[in-house]
Amino acid sequence: MNETYQKLQKYLDKESALEVALALLGWDAETLAPKQAVDHTSKAVGILAGEAYQTIINDEVKDLLSKLSLPEEQKTLTDVEQKIVKQLKKQYDDMEQIPIEEFQAYQELTAKAPSVWARAKEQKDFASFAPLLEEVFAYNIRFGKYRSKEGQQPYDVLLKDYEECFDAASLDQFFEEVKATIVPLLKKVSAKKDFIQDDFLYQCYDVKKQDEFCRFLAEYIGFDFERGVLAESAHPFTNSLHNKDVRITNHYYEKNLASAIFSVIHEGGHALYELGVADELTMTPVGGGTSMGMHESQSRMYENMIGRSKEFWLPVYSKLQDTYPEQLNTVTLDTFIRAINKAQSGLIRTESDELCYCLHVIIRYEIEKDLFAGKITVNELPTVWNQKYQEYLGVTPADDAEGVLQDIHWSCGNVGYFPSYALGNAIAAQMYAQMKKELPVDELLKEGNLKAIREYLNEHVHKFGKMKNTNEILMDMTGQPLNAKYYTEYLVEKYTSLYEL
Amino acid sequence: MNETYQKLQKYLDKESALEVALALLGWDAETLAPKQAVDHTSKAVGILAGEAYQTIINDEVKDLLSKLSLPEEQKTLTDVEQKIVKQLKKQYDDMEQIPIEEFQAYQELTAKAPSVWARAKEQKDFASFAPLLEEVFAYNIRFGKYRSKEGQQPYDVLLKDYEECFDAASLDQFFEEVKATIVPLLKKVSAKKDFIQDDFLYQCYDVKKQDEFCRFLAEYIGFDFERGVLAESAHPFTNSLHNKDVRITNHYYEKNLASAIFSVIHEGGHALYELGVADELTMTPVGGGTSMGMHESQSRMYENMIGRSKEFWLPVYSKLQDTYPEQLNTVTLDTFIRAINKAQSGLIRTESDELCYCLHVIIRYEIEKDLFAGKITVNELPTVWNQKYQEYLGVTPADDAEGVLQDIHWSCGNVGYFPSYALGNAIAAQMYAQMKKELPVDELLKEGNLKAIREYLNEHVHKFGKMKNTNEILMDMTGQPLNAKYYTEYLVEKYTSLYEL
Repeated sequence: MNETYQKLQKYLDKESALEVALALLGWDAETLAPKQAVDHTSKAVGILAGEAYQTIINDEVKDLLSKLSLPEEQKTLTDVEQKIVKQLKKQYDDMEQIPIEEFQAYQELTAKAPSVWARAKEQKDFASFAPLLEEVFAYNIRFGKYRSKEGQQPYDVLLKDYEECFDAASLDQFFEEVKATIVPLLKKVSAKKDFIQDDFLYQCYDVKKQDEFCRFLAEYIGFDFERGVLAESAHPFTNSLHNKDVRITNHYYEKNLASAIFSVIHEGGHALYELGVADELTMTPVGGGTSMGMHESQSRMYENMIGRSKEFWLPVYSKLQDTYPEQLNTVTLDTFIRAINKAQSGLIRTESDELCYCLHVIIRYEIEKDLFAGKITVNELPTVWNQKYQEYLGVTPADDAEGVLQDIHWSCGNVGYFPSYALGNAIAAQMYAQMKKELPVDELLKEGNLKAIREYLNEHVHKFGKMKNTNEILMDMTGQPLNAKYYTEYLVEKYTSLYEL
Repeated sequence: MNETYQKLQKYLDKESALEVALALLGWDAETLAPKQAVDHTSKAVGILAGEAYQTIINDEVKDLLSKLSLPEEQKTLTDVEQKIVKQLKKQYDDMEQIPIEEFQAYQELTAKAPSVWARAKEQKDFASFAPLLEEVFAYNIRFGKYRSKEGQQPYDVLLKDYEECFDAASLDQFFEEVKATIVPLLKKVSAKKDFIQDDFLYQCYDVKKQDEFCRFLAEYIGFDFERGVLAESAHPFTNSLHNKDVRITNHYYEKNLASAIFSVIHEGGHALYELGVADELTMTPVGGGTSMGMHESQSRMYENMIGRSKEFWLPVYSKLQDTYPEQLNTVTLDTFIRAINKAQSGLIRTESDELCYCLHVIIRYEIEKDLFAGKITVNELPTVWNQKYQEYLGVTPADDAEGVLQDIHWSCGNVGYFPSYALGNAIAAQMYAQMKKELPVDELLKEGNLKAIREYLNEHVHKFGKMKNTNEILMDMTGQPLNAKYYTEYLVEKYTSLYEL
């Protein structure tokens, strides 16, 4: 091993150990930790997070990275080592553009903003959150400017934090194409709003049995309980300590059967990605999923393309009926499939169906872009928000809690994050089309052979961790960069058939 | 705040944050972590433990402690700060006596020895563990020598690591007194071995209901589920992140009702101690229980003196009957109380009843002492062990798994640890006698008023953390240092009455 890299390895190991601890602390806080633990434990988490940061951001690591970036040193490094050096170097270069006092002030701001947001949402009072939100955006605009390279727009800098292969120009084009398909399609679907009956999904469903069935589903798609945990939390999420310990959560509603079922398949999709990262990459800086967009592509492919298909349910539906005979014995598989695919305009992104989902994202993207361009101000957000919901989805929030205050992201400083949710859908559609060319996907699903699908995705996506970016994965797998037509075609075909349009 | 101390505070905070993470990782590993996580996670734990060690053991902290130990600096410190400095300084002075290479070699040895021990126990093969055990004792004898001060015996040095107020001389006296009471008492009890019927405790008891009842018991004695968690693990234990997050575990056997019940009360006693530590002390080096002995005194007082008393069960027993009507409706409270107090010689320390427990400890203590004195060798241990079990308890192990290999302690390097288990019993008896003078304990138990008892113990023991040592606590609370007569009198009275001797 390169001697300089060996010195770097010491820091990488320490950082990775701290990340394992932070991942567990984060998971525990949402699942098991007792109520009153939060103050003391948060203090510890703050210190450990600072420690993780300082383990990488310090003068010795900086020197090591400079040395390791020299061509003659690069030659002696493995591919993985080269990638790690490149990624850390970029993080350094970015970081150095931001004055340290501003960075610290911003950390403090985003540490307290989520609780202010939560209170504002509870009290349906945007005004009480607006000043902080204004600061968050002001910092992000400034940081974008500091970090931008010749002629680059500040918003593009932030977008690339979450999905390096896209900027506002490519996203504009992508979203225009998506919007041009979805808006008219949704109008037609909405015109037949009682065409699909789904009342039976909202009967009483014992939550203990939901949990059991969801554990079965997780295992069915390939979640390995020897390398993972499923627990309950207020909102479902996935969290990875390393590729031998990936944890998902679920939430059960007695009067909503579909919610937990599709949450576990969604989080299961995220988990399969993390569980599939190669052993040589896990617990290194290139050990997780390559981007938010790619991560969402895996979760949403499992949730929607696989999990809402008739083929998937063919071998499984009778088990669900056996779990709830009273509620489902008279419901045919076809009726069930139609119900779980029903589309309906709504106000809340996280509860949205597949057809409307991207519209929720587009609204947030357009707002962020306009805020960065100075075309709108934070104070105007509730008005702008409500107008756009009326325009794209035909609905208007009764208050800001179900409007502009619904998402936590901005309060945490996650600006530029939302588009990756939409990209995930489109990446999933393109990959799914490709996979269908190479594998008899429908047949495999009918046979309950999820292993072949999982192995295919592992081979083309999961195992690489961050060694390839989104476009590299798409190019190698499908022969082209992201092409929205797979997604739009998928939606048109699905909903035309479902609603007999 | 003293400026030098402020510098030290930074290290203390970091160390405490790491300890919180390590506590959670430790708890998680025994309760929830998936099977295959262990290798990766252990690597992280090793790094974080090393980091915690280096956070305190480094030249800057050493200098700060030297400065802060000067009389003029001491004057400017609070009591808590003085105690912390004193304790860390002692740790430093101790550490410096041990050559660093030997210390590291010992760390490696005790990192691998437990797995060798586990295999040896599984295969009932002492010989395969003996060479490592010999090394462990050799290191401990040498470290004891390095650290000993003028004329001090090496074994005394180690004993004081676990209970600073005792050495072999005082323990010899203590154990002689205890042995002089227990051995003849046990002989009399053993002569009436079928006097007490307890078969009904070994019927089938649904484990889910056991868990529910144990949760009730935990809450009943004052375990606060807003500041704690109860989960399952192979062996029950208590673990504290800080005084707002203390976690206990239990283990349920379908065919043994008493095991889980007394485990939860025992661990609950440990937990009340940790939950009771004052806010200003938690998450500092003086934030936990003051010693192993004092900790065991709290757990065993709750388990045995409180938890096995008729008064405790008066308001509670009907609830247990309601939980298991089929098994218990014909069992009177008196029959139940007699059964849960039955004494019977056995081979396994952790399964021992109250009367025999100290004999198990005495055997280990005598063996350690003789090893340190060179009177016996590690290879002779199986023979010595079996002789002593025959002599003190009248039983002989069938193999080394239920003999000399039964405990994990020595493989972890915990030499000098066992006596604290016995001290805990005696401390508990002395405290309980005092508490009965000041509080109407039996009346409180009959009324189900556990709060008064908990508050009394908090006021005299829990809140001080490590600010007082065992003798200081005993002196302030009972007016005298440890006096074994309270314990021996308690045993004589209890078993004479129970067995109508």
